[in-house]
Amino acid sequence: MVITDRFEISTKGQGDAHYITGRIAAAIARSPVSNGLVTAFIVGSTAGITTIEFEPGAIGDLNGLFERLAPRDGAYRHHLQWGDDNGSSHVRAALLGPSVTVPFVDRRLTLGTWQQVMLLEFDTRAGRREVVVQMVGE
Amino acid sequence: MVITDRFEISTKGQGDAHYITGRIAAAIARSPVSNGLVTAFIVGSTAGITTIEFEPGAIGDLNGLFERLAPRDGAYRHHLQWGDDNGSSHVRAALLGPSVTVPFVDRRLTLGTWQQVMLLEFDTRAGRREVVVQMVGE
Amino acid sequence: MVITDRFEISTKGQGDAHYITGRIAAAIARSPVSNGLVTAFIVGSTAGITTIEFEPGAIGDLNGLFERLAPRDGAYRHHLQWGDDNGSSHVRAALLGPSVTVPFVDRRLTLGTWQQVMLLEFDTRAGRREVVVQMVGE
Repeated sequence: MVITDRFEISTKGQGDAHYITGRIAAAIARSPVSNGLVTAFIVGSTAGITTIEFEPGAIGDLNGLFERLAPRDGAYRHHLQWGDDNGSSHVRAALLGPSVTVPFVDRRLTLGTWQQVMLLEFDTRAGRREVVVQMVGE
Repeated sequence: MVITDRFEISTKGQGDAHYITGRIAAAIARSPVSNGLVTAFIVGSTAGITTIEFEPGAIGDLNGLFERLAPRDGAYRHHLQWGDDNGSSHVRAALLGPSVTVPFVDRRLTLGTWQQVMLLEFDTRAGRREVVVQMVGE
Repeated sequence: MVITDRFEISTKGQGDAHYITGRIAAAIARSPVSNGLVTAFIVGSTAGITTIEFEPGAIGDLNGLFERLAPRDGAYRHHLQWGDDNGSSHVRAALLGPSVTVPFVDRRLTLGTWQQVMLLEFDTRAGRREVVVQMVGE
């Protein structure tokens, strides 16, 4: 059985982090699927999804790492290509990846107590984000 | 068809690496599923799972990279939040991700000859780890 | 329903990037599965798969990041182990991960307009690469 759900989020630009465990759990709750895999997939190439203890300190630390890895004001070949300013966004997103896949059992995600699913905006602009929540199971 | 398996591992703290291909293959072997996807998912936000040639050199190199990216003794906002000392653990785990998803065909994982699934402990303390092995297929 | 497809690609060594969205879409098109999850999994531990805007600038920026993280000519314990020269390849591949999992709906991948699936060769040698495309759905 395959059920597709979707939701949108407004983000404020690079570094803006959103807790999305609740949205994924709600999609499972309103689906007829009790056990399976759920993939939360970000549509677009300048944001990412991972799991983290969702508190401002850890999120700030992760954003600090990304700023060291791919500084927002660095020189990017992508900028020369399109006259764009979001080379840092593309690099960060490709490194982190566009999705997480989480098992669920008896309609519950198998996350740890402090482990949350997070959407992390990498783009330099605010915008609307779409997440596809795909459940496959029985 | 969905089959859930689980196993636990005792780890010795940050950098401790565990070969878990055998555990995943055993879960498939004792399940009725012949073909599908298996997700090995770490419960908790201070460890990660990936694939690697599982030999001490490559594992040491990867740990060396993580130490450069997020030094254990660095300054982390997460420490200020909770009086904790594992900010490096959270950052490393969020970057690497909590799971791998591997196809299996005729009950065999489609890994390369030297490609193994590895659980990498990032926390600063030793502890018990739980991995959920979720198989979806037929 | 589970359908397994495979394809091969010849790569030119470290940093060589291949657009593989078309291969994955073709596998879905020739399968009887309309909705589900598809995992594109690289067989081997010295290449990776992710999503990116597939243009030379962004790809060059990502390769630049990997060269800073794990320089090709750096010192690696893996080299001491096997007399090999691809320690940088193993570290990069373990960090990026071997696969992406993408939802598909009505036989269409839910990618963004500029979001493409890319195989990135990390090994220091040219070679043949095999990708397993596993579809699970209905």
